[in-house]
Amino acid sequence: MKTLVVVSHPNIEKSDTQQFLKASAVSLSQVVWHHLDANLPFDVAAEQQMIQAADRIVFQFPLYWYMAPASLHQWLTEVWVKQFVYDAHGGLLKGKSLGLVVSFSQPESAYQLGGQVGFSLSQFLAPYAALAEKTGLQLLTPLAIARFANQNDSDHQQLLIRYQQYLTLQHPDNFEAQAQWFINRLQEDPKTTMLADQLASQTDEIDRLRLTLHELKAGESE
Amino acid sequence: MKTLVVVSHPNIEKSDTQQFLKASAVSLSQVVWHHLDANLPFDVAAEQQMIQAADRIVFQFPLYWYMAPASLHQWLTEVWVKQFVYDAHGGLLKGKSLGLVVSFSQPESAYQLGGQVGFSLSQFLAPYAALAEKTGLQLLTPLAIARFANQNDSDHQQLLIRYQQYLTLQHPDNFEAQAQWFINRLQEDPKTTMLADQLASQTDEIDRLRLTLHELKAGESE
Repeated sequence: MKTLVVVSHPNIEKSDTQQFLKASAVSLSQVVWHHLDANLPFDVAAEQQMIQAADRIVFQFPLYWYMAPASLHQWLTEVWVKQFVYDAHGGLLKGKSLGLVVSFSQPESAYQLGGQVGFSLSQFLAPYAALAEKTGLQLLTPLAIARFANQNDSDHQQLLIRYQQYLTLQHPDNFEAQAQWFINRLQEDPKTTMLADQLASQTDEIDRLRLTLHELKAGESE
Repeated sequence: MKTLVVVSHPNIEKSDTQQFLKASAVSLSQVVWHHLDANLPFDVAAEQQMIQAADRIVFQFPLYWYMAPASLHQWLTEVWVKQFVYDAHGGLLKGKSLGLVVSFSQPESAYQLGGQVGFSLSQFLAPYAALAEKTGLQLLTPLAIARFANQNDSDHQQLLIRYQQYLTLQHPDNFEAQAQWFINRLQEDPKTTMLADQLASQTDEIDRLRLTLHELKAGESE
């Protein structure tokens, strides 16, 4: 699976969050990191080719006044034109997936009724849900990054894993896929191969237990 | 009341909607028409001065992928900075009102559950509601302009009136304020003074009838 990460940030060198995410993505061979603000003015044909080559497109941006920065909007206006998005074959985006990696400086709990912000992240991202539906893109649940600067090393380690999974897994929210991802990563390194084997056999055991549970339930309902 | 109309449109000369709105606003002495895309790069201090001088700020834009074009986002990022929006006196925007004039090419009925778009305009505009709440701006109900190109002369005439009221009335949704606006406009022209007098006396009559009704109801509930 090839992933295009479309980053919108007017001041990316000063963003610890974006630098961290960039470092997390650099080792992934199937991931293209594409910073919009560094590619202005847009070469529309080249941009469209990058989109066509990707199976997953990820919009990655900080929230400024609860919305994406200007470059993402400019890119959508200039690149996602009707002729491209709705082509003769029923849409060039159909079947691809759309991810959203959104960072903000408030705690995640601020984004709800009665919270500091008072609206949910889903409310603010409604236009992207409409865009996905309109173009046949399958929308992933957003990856929200709250208060990166206040996170500790353990939080950062978890974010790195979640982010890499978000960019590379067909179903990043799926538990089995996440476990398999760990096994694959651990097996790459001789030092952790044993750990990987242990994890793999545990994963198999979980599968077996689930199957047994399923059969018991099926028996009950007969 | 002074109104600043902040227009975001990358191709305004070709937009019939924006040209029509501009022509509708030009005669209003208390209204400043400010096209963002023509003022790039922004002179931040000058932009902030314009905002401070206004009692009402209107964001006016077409929906591109259900969001505003890039220039409004760039302007918000560069001009609506913390130091300006949350000053030492508790916010320079507090007490002003915020209007939204939003145009789109679908019929208004598309913006609902099950419609062609599937989301409401209020859902897409949630970030502006959050922004208004955060900065102490009083949000007006948006003025939606659907399918301008398909509207007839009578629709355009009505839009002109609604738009002028939206820019100039303290409470543009208020029935009495709308009636008074008509009376004022008609009285400016000798040919329509009689019509204005007629309208004024009808408005008074409506007030009297409402008062009577109110008194009757009060009597009932005693």
